[in-house]
Amino acid sequence: MLGEFDLIARYLRPLAAGEPAALGLTDDAAVMTPPPGQDLVLAADAMVSGLHFLPDDPVETVGRKLLRVNLSDLAAMGARPLGYLMTLTLPAGLDEAWLAAYSAGLAADQEAFGLSLLGGDITRTDGPLTLSLTILGAVPSGRRLTRGGARPGDRLYLSGPIGDAGLGLALLQGRLTLDDAEARDALIARYRLPPPRLALGQALLAEGLASAAIDVSDGLLADAGHIAETSGCRLEIEASRVPLSVAASSLVAAEPERALQRLGAGDDYELLFSMPEAAESKIAALAARLDLSPSGIGRVVEGEGVTLLGEDGGPLSASQVGWTHF
Amino acid sequence: MLGEFDLIARYLRPLAAGEPAALGLTDDAAVMTPPPGQDLVLAADAMVSGLHFLPDDPVETVGRKLLRVNLSDLAAMGARPLGYLMTLTLPAGLDEAWLAAYSAGLAADQEAFGLSLLGGDITRTDGPLTLSLTILGAVPSGRRLTRGGARPGDRLYLSGPIGDAGLGLALLQGRLTLDDAEARDALIARYRLPPPRLALGQALLAEGLASAAIDVSDGLLADAGHIAETSGCRLEIEASRVPLSVAASSLVAAEPERALQRLGAGDDYELLFSMPEAAESKIAALAARLDLSPSGIGRVVEGEGVTLLGEDGGPLSASQVGWTHF
Repeated sequence: MLGEFDLIARYLRPLAAGEPAALGLTDDAAVMTPPPGQDLVLAADAMVSGLHFLPDDPVETVGRKLLRVNLSDLAAMGARPLGYLMTLTLPAGLDEAWLAAYSAGLAADQEAFGLSLLGGDITRTDGPLTLSLTILGAVPSGRRLTRGGARPGDRLYLSGPIGDAGLGLALLQGRLTLDDAEARDALIARYRLPPPRLALGQALLAEGLASAAIDVSDGLLADAGHIAETSGCRLEIEASRVPLSVAASSLVAAEPERALQRLGAGDDYELLFSMPEAAESKIAALAARLDLSPSGIGRVVEGEGVTLLGEDGGPLSASQVGWTHF
Repeated sequence: MLGEFDLIARYLRPLAAGEPAALGLTDDAAVMTPPPGQDLVLAADAMVSGLHFLPDDPVETVGRKLLRVNLSDLAAMGARPLGYLMTLTLPAGLDEAWLAAYSAGLAADQEAFGLSLLGGDITRTDGPLTLSLTILGAVPSGRRLTRGGARPGDRLYLSGPIGDAGLGLALLQGRLTLDDAEARDALIARYRLPPPRLALGQALLAEGLASAAIDVSDGLLADAGHIAETSGCRLEIEASRVPLSVAASSLVAAEPERALQRLGAGDDYELLFSMPEAAESKIAALAARLDLSPSGIGRVVEGEGVTLLGEDGGPLSASQVGWTHF
C-alpha cells in the first residue's frame, strides 16, 4: 500500500483538477476568491461505516452519499455549491482498488452537482472507515432560506416522497423483504444515493417563495419540529398527503402502519418548506421547470410542535403514531 | 449519555457563541459574509487517537492540538484565522465530562487565536476517537505565502527549535527518559500543544519578506523537500545551525546522533521560510516585534532536493544522517 502522500496524489488530486483554488492539493491549504456579492454557506458532516452507511454498500456510493448529505444542507439554505474538503480515515483492509472506486463515485457526483474537491487528508485507523466532509456554498449576500420564517397561514410542502430511504435500509438489513426487484432497487438507491434538492432550494430563495425550509435528514416529524421550534409556530401535517413513492407502495399496502412509521424515518433528504398561501400559485410552474412534484402536506398554525392529522382532519393519537422505525 | 443533538447544544454551541455566522449551530449550515478584498484559505486535517495523539493525553489538549495543526496550515500561507468546522466521532466510553474538558480546551485556544466554531457534528463509533477539522482563513486578495517561490541565493530560516515534539512523544511512549522534570514537561508540551506561527506568517506576507514558506509538520527534511520540489531548487541546510531548544539540549548531549535524528522528526510546527538576502536586514526587527528568534539555517541553490551540510561545510553522507526517528 502506498503512503498517505502518494494516496492523496493518486486518488484525491484528480478530484481537485478542475478547481484552481485547490492548488492541486500540493500546498498547505486551498486559496479561493469568494464570489462577489455573495455570502458563504458552510456545513460539516461525518459518516461512520456501519452507522451512516453499510460496510457492504458499493464503494462507489459511499463518498457520493457523504457529499450528497452535505449538499442537502446547502439545498436547505438555497445555496449553490462552491467546493468541499474531505478527510478519510481508512482501516488497514481498504486497498487502492477501494480508493479508486470511491474516487470514481465522487468524480461522477462532482460532475453532476458542479463542484470539486478543495482539500483533503488521508489517515489510518484500526477502527471503522470514518469520513468527514465540509461543504462550501454561496447565497446572494444577506439572503438565505431559514428554518425560522414559517408563519401561521403558510402552507407546507414536501419536494418528494418520504420513507423510501428507511425502507431501503430495512431491506438491506434483511428486516423487510420485497420480491419486486425494481422497487427494491429503487428503495435501496434512495438510501445509498439521496437526492440533494439544490435546484429547488436555489429557486425557492431566488423567487422568494419559501418562508422556511429544511432538508429531511432526521425524519419528517423531527425536521418539521425544527421548523416549528425555530419559527415559533405549530405545523399541522395531514398524514395521508405525505407523498409515497410507487416503489414503496406495495410494502405500505401490505402493512398499513408503515404509512405512519415512515414519517419518523430519516435519510430521505427531500426539502420540507413553508410558503405563504399567496405564493402557492407559483409552485406548479416551478415544479414543472425543475421536474419535481412537490406536494402540499399541511399548514402552519399558531402554537408549537407538530400535529399529525388523520383522514378525518383530527389529530392522531400517540398510540396511533408509534414512532418506531421500520 | 445525552443524544447527539443535546451534546452539540451543550458542548459545541458555546464554542460558536462569539460568531454570528455560526447561527448558534441551530441551522443547516453557517452563513458568513467573506471579508472584502480578501481571498479565503481552507485546509482540513483529521486526527485519530493513538496515531496523532495518545489516548492518555490530557483531554484539554486534544482539541487544541487539532486546531493548532490546522492553524499552522494558515500560518504557512500567511493567513489570519476566520473560523473552523469540526466533526467528532466518539467511542462509547467518552462521557460528558470528557466533552466538557475537550470543549474547555478549545475555548481557551479560540480566545488565544481569535476564532470561533462555525459548525460541527458529533457521531458515534466503535473505533477510536476520530476528529476532523476544517479551518477557514483569509489573505489579502491575490497574495499568499507559497512553497514555490524559493530562488537560488535566498537564505533559509526556521522560526524556532526542531526536535522537541518528537522527543516529547518519545518520552511519553517511554522510549526515552529524562530526569529534569521542567525540560521533560516542556518537550511534552511541544508535542501536545504545538505553536502555530500565525503572527510570523502574516508579517512575512504583509512585508513581502519570504519567497517561500511551509510549516514543519512532516519533519524538517521532508518539508524542506517540499519547498525544494515546488520551487525547483536545492536547499542546503547546515545541520549545526538548526536551532535546538534548551529543554532538548541534555538529551542531545547524552546521545549526539539525536542532533541529526531530530531533523527527521515531525510535529514541531515551526515555519521554515526562505527570503532574499536583501530582506535579511529586516528579520531582526520582525523577530523582536513578534518575540521570536528565527535562525538562519542555510540557503537555496541551483539543483534539486535537500542537502545537509556538516560542520566542515561539506554534505553529510546518508550513513551519517540515518533517518530513523527518536
